[in-house]
Amino acid sequence: MAKKEKMDFNLIQPFINATLTVLKTMAFTEAHSKPPYLKDQNTANGDVSGVIGLTGDSSGSLSVSFPEKTILVIVSNMFGERMSQVDDEIKDAVGEITNMISGQARQELEGMGMSLESAIPTVISGKDHTIKHITTYPILAITFSLDEGEFLSGQGEEFTIEVCIEEE
Amino acid sequence: MAKKEKMDFNLIQPFINATLTVLKTMAFTEAHSKPPYLKDQNTANGDVSGVIGLTGDSSGSLSVSFPEKTILVIVSNMFGERMSQVDDEIKDAVGEITNMISGQARQELEGMGMSLESAIPTVISGKDHTIKHITTYPILAITFSLDEGEFLSGQGEEFTIEVCIEEE
Repeated sequence: MAKKEKMDFNLIQPFINATLTVLKTMAFTEAHSKPPYLKDQNTANGDVSGVIGLTGDSSGSLSVSFPEKTILVIVSNMFGERMSQVDDEIKDAVGEITNMISGQARQELEGMGMSLESAIPTVISGKDHTIKHITTYPILAITFSLDEGEFLSGQGEEFTIEVCIEEE
Repeated sequence: MAKKEKMDFNLIQPFINATLTVLKTMAFTEAHSKPPYLKDQNTANGDVSGVIGLTGDSSGSLSVSFPEKTILVIVSNMFGERMSQVDDEIKDAVGEITNMISGQARQELEGMGMSLESAIPTVISGKDHTIKHITTYPILAITFSLDEGEFLSGQGEEFTIEVCIEEE
């Protein structure tokens, strides 16, 4: 099948906003986003990822992939306690972060006239796994870089979110 | 949050039926299912997994996790050609298998009065990753064991599906 050429970049902004807000309010961590790019390979990888499916006016999926070091910094800030390994608490936190990013982005999309529902999030854990969204539509990826953390600084550590919305 | 005690086992049968049918019709591979069990740890792991979110009358998620050896046998039968490594073709096949299991199961559930929609499937690849469904509801797991394959026999090789439906 031919790839659809474009995805409306306006649909991405709510996910960027939501990610920055959730990091700040839940994990007391500032971050900034780099420019979105079209993902033409399934190169996004991480050590812990949250994935959530979207349905409604369009089908979609959102993934949030963290290297181990980045998520340990974020969850340490969230809990105000130094976390040193990816355990069940970290996985639950990734699920919650994914859920909240999806929820806030959907709220902003609703205001733009697109109504979406979320499925149950899943969290994948495993050194250097890759995630591939099964779609013929474009997938947009955004890398975030951490700034200050209230408890622990992870300045420069990065993570990536990927969004696909099969917009008709 | 307290776990809900029960999940209706009747909701699982359509996923078992769909898995057996999809394997047989798409991959010319017979399999049989072992008894479903409640998953109380996130122990299900695999080397390649398909994950799909469900929404509608209930929220849910379905994952299908294959060890490398099992998926190589299945896709070899599907293509009639010996596959020797997990590449992009294998990942796409896992996406398609996941999508079709979800589609057939949803069709049977529809007949039982439960209407669900599917989100975009994602495929995770990475040696021995684990999958955790973020829910307070029970998660049911079913292990399947391969019997005959038309092209390649993988008798005894196993894989596992997990289903969660947040039934009110």
